[in-house]
Amino acid sequence: VTSEEEPRERRARIWPGDLVRWVTEAVVQLGTPPDVADDVSAVLVAADRRGIASHGTARLPQYVSLVRRGILDPAAQPTLERSLGAIALFDAHNGWGHHAGRVANDWAVATAIDLGCAIAVVRGSNHFGIAGWYAMRAAENGLVGIALSNSSPLVAPTRAREALIGTNPIAIAAPAGGFGTVVLDMATSTVSRGRIEVAQRRGEALHPSWALDEAGYPALSAEAALGGALLPLGGHEETGGYKGYGLALVVDILTGVLAGAAYGPNIVPLFSTEHGTSDLGHTFIVIDPEALDGRKAFGQRLAAYAHQLITAPVAPDAPDRVLIPGEPEASLERRSDEQGIEMDDTHAADLARLATELGVEPPRLS
Amino acid sequence: VTSEEEPRERRARIWPGDLVRWVTEAVVQLGTPPDVADDVSAVLVAADRRGIASHGTARLPQYVSLVRRGILDPAAQPTLERSLGAIALFDAHNGWGHHAGRVANDWAVATAIDLGCAIAVVRGSNHFGIAGWYAMRAAENGLVGIALSNSSPLVAPTRAREALIGTNPIAIAAPAGGFGTVVLDMATSTVSRGRIEVAQRRGEALHPSWALDEAGYPALSAEAALGGALLPLGGHEETGGYKGYGLALVVDILTGVLAGAAYGPNIVPLFSTEHGTSDLGHTFIVIDPEALDGRKAFGQRLAAYAHQLITAPVAPDAPDRVLIPGEPEASLERRSDEQGIEMDDTHAADLARLATELGVEPPRLS
Repeated sequence: VTSEEEPRERRARIWPGDLVRWVTEAVVQLGTPPDVADDVSAVLVAADRRGIASHGTARLPQYVSLVRRGILDPAAQPTLERSLGAIALFDAHNGWGHHAGRVANDWAVATAIDLGCAIAVVRGSNHFGIAGWYAMRAAENGLVGIALSNSSPLVAPTRAREALIGTNPIAIAAPAGGFGTVVLDMATSTVSRGRIEVAQRRGEALHPSWALDEAGYPALSAEAALGGALLPLGGHEETGGYKGYGLALVVDILTGVLAGAAYGPNIVPLFSTEHGTSDLGHTFIVIDPEALDGRKAFGQRLAAYAHQLITAPVAPDAPDRVLIPGEPEASLERRSDEQGIEMDDTHAADLARLATELGVEPPRLS
Repeated sequence: VTSEEEPRERRARIWPGDLVRWVTEAVVQLGTPPDVADDVSAVLVAADRRGIASHGTARLPQYVSLVRRGILDPAAQPTLERSLGAIALFDAHNGWGHHAGRVANDWAVATAIDLGCAIAVVRGSNHFGIAGWYAMRAAENGLVGIALSNSSPLVAPTRAREALIGTNPIAIAAPAGGFGTVVLDMATSTVSRGRIEVAQRRGEALHPSWALDEAGYPALSAEAALGGALLPLGGHEETGGYKGYGLALVVDILTGVLAGAAYGPNIVPLFSTEHGTSDLGHTFIVIDPEALDGRKAFGQRLAAYAHQLITAPVAPDAPDRVLIPGEPEASLERRSDEQGIEMDDTHAADLARLATELGVEPPRLS
């Protein structure tokens, strides 16, 4: 997580509330109903607040291109297609993934409160932003949330020469009493494509377990990797890369295959405006500890566990104490809320240009 | 998976049915009720049939030691402690994990058939063998099965100097129509402790992403690693090890913490006869695609996906085509059933010695 942070430089800042209002206005301007736009802005700005710029409002120009080319339907409303007890299928009808995701996730939260456990799957969707947002929404209710999505092929399965499968994220959030929330939100690749782009800007050599080049050999430069494929978590076969590939595949099974959406190599390229609709699948699994020995007891145990981990002896080359998943992002979120979200020049300029295009005021930077 | 295979040598063979009967008899001899013993032998022999010797009947002498020292109660029967809708908690009362796991998993399968999705958690348990067995049992019914367990601390969380967390396996199985079953069954460490022991016997140097030595530096020899800790999937921080650590942690959250069992550094060492009971937690999540567009349609989509993967172009250094998780084990299972299970000399001698100890006939090798 920390390894994906950009080096600090002087940047523009914007208050989260201002950015939320601006994104909502921009998205409504595209023909999005206000309640749908609220979800889009909440999820995108949450990524910016948590320092995950690659999944936040920096993507807005690409979403807008999809809408303008008629590829993403901004007015679509998701529908509940089928449900039985603790399972439901939603169709996003090619609308905003953030809204369909929020609606399906809320169904799973409400049903888990009734039945202890529930799963909602979504088909016909588009990118839904950070998976962690949905899982955290369950955790805010005292529940354990799991959010999964498939995505465009960027990862080479172990032994394959080219990208056939997405970076298919896994997010799991659980309330940890006084400690806060534990949030694992990870791509199933070793690093993200965004991290390769950072290496390109810095002129860094790549670790050979990050990516393959176009011919299927380990990519040693960012340029070679960007023409090739990412490697799954674990890297090559010898270091357990087949496990990361297996995880990416099971995420696709639980999302695209289960929902009857697109999967694997059949998903169109990331934010492509030339290959038709995405038809992504998302899945939300929610568990309520209340029926076991109660939400409070669960949270207390998890807080005690977190305390044991963060006070453990560290390795001699460790830069700091053991971290709990989600801690770095929670710390950036607090800083964003207190001091404003930091935005690099390209990002700020892109949003200003988008404002002009859409005929709205530019976002108010401070 | 293949990297953990031992080099081929001439070995004893035993028919799976003979081994199942012998294990049942041996386990009953210890004071285990016959229905409980049936589950123990089914799970242990399944591991042997699938070539996962480290989790099969080779462990039987260690289980027997636990029983003889009064640490594992062979006669215990699991009880359903609480249930509500799609969630249930079982207490294994310190009995055989294989039986408590089978009972809880069967509850989740039956409930998922009614409600579309269900979760069963178990506390107070012992090692339950291969997690894949439970997930495959759900898949045999046309459902998607997920099986998780925590385990004794063997893995150092990212930045920690020592083992604080288990290799906490994740197994997911899904029926894939004419292709068979997709089964991911993986420890969340880069390699297993068994793989380090293999390196020791072979005198191999270790990959630096496999383990730490006692002081918390990368272990370059098996001896150093066996006195230290395994590294999580992904290895060190730079190559995504914090994701493997995060996965190990969320498995523990979904098992030990959720069930109110032991977790993390509080779990006694593996098969220890000196540190009290294990109090492990297991969790089974089962999903029934029937309520969506049906089990058959799901299986057909997954078979088509598997076909796309296994026919994809391979990397220039790939030893063979792309594999689907579970394929190598399914192939070994077929060979075991056709030609008998291969058993190395140590394993065969250990079982013969155990037979003498327990006053039963030795297993009939061929």
